[in-house]
Amino acid sequence: MRVRLIGIGPGGPDDLTVAAVHALESVDVFLVPDKKRGVDDLVAVREQILRRHTSGSHRMIVVPDPPRDRNPERYGDEVRDWHAARAEAYETVLLEQVREDETVGFLVWGDPSLYDSTIRVVERILDRGRVRFDYDVVPGVSSVQLLAARHRLVLNTIGGPITVTTGRRLMQDVAAGASNIVVMLDGGLACADLDGAWNIWWGANLGTDDEELVAGPLAEVLPAIREARARAKGARGWVMDTYLLRRG
Amino acid sequence: MRVRLIGIGPGGPDDLTVAAVHALESVDVFLVPDKKRGVDDLVAVREQILRRHTSGSHRMIVVPDPPRDRNPERYGDEVRDWHAARAEAYETVLLEQVREDETVGFLVWGDPSLYDSTIRVVERILDRGRVRFDYDVVPGVSSVQLLAARHRLVLNTIGGPITVTTGRRLMQDVAAGASNIVVMLDGGLACADLDGAWNIWWGANLGTDDEELVAGPLAEVLPAIREARARAKGARGWVMDTYLLRRG
Repeated sequence: MRVRLIGIGPGGPDDLTVAAVHALESVDVFLVPDKKRGVDDLVAVREQILRRHTSGSHRMIVVPDPPRDRNPERYGDEVRDWHAARAEAYETVLLEQVREDETVGFLVWGDPSLYDSTIRVVERILDRGRVRFDYDVVPGVSSVQLLAARHRLVLNTIGGPITVTTGRRLMQDVAAGASNIVVMLDGGLACADLDGAWNIWWGANLGTDDEELVAGPLAEVLPAIREARARAKGARGWVMDTYLLRRG
Repeated sequence: MRVRLIGIGPGGPDDLTVAAVHALESVDVFLVPDKKRGVDDLVAVREQILRRHTSGSHRMIVVPDPPRDRNPERYGDEVRDWHAARAEAYETVLLEQVREDETVGFLVWGDPSLYDSTIRVVERILDRGRVRFDYDVVPGVSSVQLLAARHRLVLNTIGGPITVTTGRRLMQDVAAGASNIVVMLDGGLACADLDGAWNIWWGANLGTDDEELVAGPLAEVLPAIREARARAKGARGWVMDTYLLRRG
């Protein structure tokens, strides 16, 4: 059995690489997690990508995602438990519904190397030892890069560093001195609590038809960001935002 | 006039997105810098990408790159002077060799948002006010993401931050507490001077046929990295390396 983790980019049907298109064509069975939140829409975009870029000679198995506590007391432990439950769910599908000579594909939003669990879950399946396979990873453009492209931004200052972090960690990284920060996985605009002068380049649902962009001094544009965020959520049933913060 | 900055990915001819391929097709004139170092090879890969992904109905103008001091006393000033000289060279070409109704394309290695000068140079041309155009940016996969894919790495620890920096800044960022670090633009293995226990995932000339990968405890694998680096340089006449460092 062969497993391929294919980065499909940040949201648009043509935002994946030509190498990723070739990888899609090699897959017999796609495993797609059913996330139960704005689900139909996310599954639909995946189906659109497969319709557009493959001949259609593959199976698609939707695997119910294990339930997850989004505000746990111990974040790391909760994430690890959830990876374990997901590994078990996929293992069952691989054992029961995939033949030894088939190639399995996972479609990963954005890039598999940035705040995505698929690599960790696949490693866990291997560690469990009940299914054997080789796997490879095909990189994709992340939402961070589409954000930068839309705002025509260079993420680094000349020769300067970039901190990439999560909404949950933002305050801690600012306290440690970060002043040029990309924030991902922020469900609640953690930047609203920042003190001092910051500029923000913000985007939501990048690559979709309902993409939203706002940029400017943080304190000034926060109301516009909240409105755009609500609009994006209203349009698609879900909102994913990404932003760059830079001290002003 | 319209200008498009097109991320073509980290080195392989299929490592650009389908959206980038469509963007290539819209271009009348490509401006390609002649960097005078392993030049032929870099220009050749760009030509291969254009041959493979376009109908060939475009012009390609090679623009000699202004000379640059690679070890200046004041790095930021030197980079800014060099951007200004490059802007002037491109401006001359746009004025003398491109028609008002044409679309100009820049092929950018990796992603235009990460340690690349093209956006800054294009903004300078606009600031000079002698040529008018609109421009857009098409993102690409960066060498960082291909590095991660080849090593099957997630760049972040669970919920943790990533510092992206340059060889020049590495010591300073480590002193400030960074412990999970992506290093780009390091011409001399700055990581060799680090104290303490670190793990490294290293790659050079990623995406080319002469790609090199080494991973392991930094102190142990440094000799192997030096050998692989020399091999990559021998094979192609140039070497570009990227790596992840994580405290062990």
